[in-house]
Amino acid sequence: MLKIAVIIGSLRKESFNRKLAMALDKLSHPTLTLFYPKVDDIPLYNQEFDNNLPNEVVRFKKEIADADGVLIVTPEYNRSIPGFLKNLIDWGTRPYGQNVWARKPLAALGTSPGVIGTAVAQSHLRSIMVAIDAVMFGLPEIYLVYKDDLINDQFEFTQESTRKLMQSFLDQFAKRTEDYSYSLQSDIG
Amino acid sequence: MLKIAVIIGSLRKESFNRKLAMALDKLSHPTLTLFYPKVDDIPLYNQEFDNNLPNEVVRFKKEIADADGVLIVTPEYNRSIPGFLKNLIDWGTRPYGQNVWARKPLAALGTSPGVIGTAVAQSHLRSIMVAIDAVMFGLPEIYLVYKDDLINDQFEFTQESTRKLMQSFLDQFAKRTEDYSYSLQSDIG
Amino acid sequence: MLKIAVIIGSLRKESFNRKLAMALDKLSHPTLTLFYPKVDDIPLYNQEFDNNLPNEVVRFKKEIADADGVLIVTPEYNRSIPGFLKNLIDWGTRPYGQNVWARKPLAALGTSPGVIGTAVAQSHLRSIMVAIDAVMFGLPEIYLVYKDDLINDQFEFTQESTRKLMQSFLDQFAKRTEDYSYSLQSDIG
Amino acid sequence: MLKIAVIIGSLRKESFNRKLAMALDKLSHPTLTLFYPKVDDIPLYNQEFDNNLPNEVVRFKKEIADADGVLIVTPEYNRSIPGFLKNLIDWGTRPYGQNVWARKPLAALGTSPGVIGTAVAQSHLRSIMVAIDAVMFGLPEIYLVYKDDLINDQFEFTQESTRKLMQSFLDQFAKRTEDYSYSLQSDIG
Repeated sequence: MLKIAVIIGSLRKESFNRKLAMALDKLSHPTLTLFYPKVDDIPLYNQEFDNNLPNEVVRFKKEIADADGVLIVTPEYNRSIPGFLKNLIDWGTRPYGQNVWARKPLAALGTSPGVIGTAVAQSHLRSIMVAIDAVMFGLPEIYLVYKDDLINDQFEFTQESTRKLMQSFLDQFAKRTEDYSYSLQSDIG
Repeated sequence: MLKIAVIIGSLRKESFNRKLAMALDKLSHPTLTLFYPKVDDIPLYNQEFDNNLPNEVVRFKKEIADADGVLIVTPEYNRSIPGFLKNLIDWGTRPYGQNVWARKPLAALGTSPGVIGTAVAQSHLRSIMVAIDAVMFGLPEIYLVYKDDLINDQFEFTQESTRKLMQSFLDQFAKRTEDYSYSLQSDIG
Repeated sequence: MLKIAVIIGSLRKESFNRKLAMALDKLSHPTLTLFYPKVDDIPLYNQEFDNNLPNEVVRFKKEIADADGVLIVTPEYNRSIPGFLKNLIDWGTRPYGQNVWARKPLAALGTSPGVIGTAVAQSHLRSIMVAIDAVMFGLPEIYLVYKDDLINDQFEFTQESTRKLMQSFLDQFAKRTEDYSYSLQSDIG
Repeated sequence: MLKIAVIIGSLRKESFNRKLAMALDKLSHPTLTLFYPKVDDIPLYNQEFDNNLPNEVVRFKKEIADADGVLIVTPEYNRSIPGFLKNLIDWGTRPYGQNVWARKPLAALGTSPGVIGTAVAQSHLRSIMVAIDAVMFGLPEIYLVYKDDLINDQFEFTQESTRKLMQSFLDQFAKRTEDYSYSLQSDIG
């Protein structure tokens, strides 16, 4: 089983993207265990603490470091990723030389009420995460337009077409993360 | 006199970009008053507070709304703007319809120890700020490579070439902000 | 009357964005004259010709230089602007010091069959055009999802809601371009 | 031996990036064969030819399809990639469903006389290539400031520090491309 950290790019409890993140776990993923790192207590990054990271940040970085892969489920704020999400990414790379995103299989997805469904946020995210050496997969792009009945109270996709799209996304993410892990094992053998 | 809010994209007290921001005030700017909004107490954005903004955010938004222009002096973190800065931008646009950046004359600059001098951060910033309707000036691009003696303890540029470049930048920012304010007055008359 | 160059980011004769560009001229624009610079004969940029620009490029650059403003109507190719459009932008800035985009009022819009309606292309375009000193307006963002009946054979928007949105966009573009021209006149007086 | 297509983002014969691309072949690369696809006859993309690709494009696409990996060596034009390079990328994805960049190991590098050394171009390139499903490596970032004596007439790096940096880059590219190929073989076995 591969451990996949699912990071939600919003603090809001009723966040659409939180629902989307929870709905991923209701899909079939026989080779993956999804877990949701606690992020609501991570402070704003300040370089003064690079050599004395807050306990919450140490905990978060350890969870990412231990994961076999990462899924980022994020809204788009002002045609980029939320400051909240960028702040998590920034902590994850500090101090210099202790970047937990390096060589980490990663994909992104998102939903928003507006028509473009987080496409610009994901574009910025690609440019950022590759620069810090994440292994970012170009899976089927997921730009979901959020509607109230997209996901029900049991975190299930109500429309079969959406459920199939998301299942395909998750299947391909699992396959690629497995392939990637396998290639790393070849380094040892 | 035009009031210019200078926003520093880092929380660190000894930030290179804080020094750069302070050095701007030591240059000649007969038509501008620079001020530095307090930003170190602004919390992480959470949509739950859109209709009940924290007092610190109300204060920050009022300072920007009252300004005739904005200068953003920012480091680059992970090939984008810091989460800290994006968080300030995000608050400034919320709730929907109360975007203080709209129609605000704005320019960006930055310094970093690395060779590229915040060029990628400024690229992301342009795409974000124009999307939220700031009037972003394409002034001489300022990508300063930070060295310990770039700015002395009195916040003066130690090299004449740098001082001239920065004075030219500030002069052009002043001129364009004045022109822009003048064009707005024409709306009334 | 202000002369507005409308640049279409596609070579295809039946381009959706060509139709959108033509439809702009059917809207009300009492203070603007729209014209469509010929771009289908502009070669690929090669720096070897910087001091001996091809005649087609000289012609194109003169048309932009003489315009009071520019509208770019473009598809999105591969989550950025088309190479074709970037090539036009590149010629427009060369040789060094003869950048026709500088201080030019400019806005962008686009349509695509996919859901995101050119949003990522426009994000890249903002970061590029501001860097080369265009005055890029953050007008109502226009991300039109193209459908066969969006625009009829007389280049009219078939839906009243779309027509109103586009008219509002064009009105605001006219107003801002006028304000900008007025502010420039103040420089002389 | 892995076949690596080296794409140069400039048409100019004396291009600095052409020299950089040639200099790669003078480094040690015992597991790689570098080749330089002909690109100077590729026309501007026009969707009208999607089902009847020009012969030059068919040839180019076949060379990329047959490669085990791709290196893009590009200048930065106007804070993005050259229109010329984007045009090659665009052809490579057309018609729909025949995207030669998909699952292709890829890295980018570049040099420019200016201080930022193509950093913004590479940022745009990351966002584009991941979206079209290339496997883009976050190798040591190569932003070379071009100086006349950077590379001599035999295409050798004149400074040992630069040579070491570039050799490390190429070694890591070779290693990752091999790992990736190995992971694909596991799919078959």
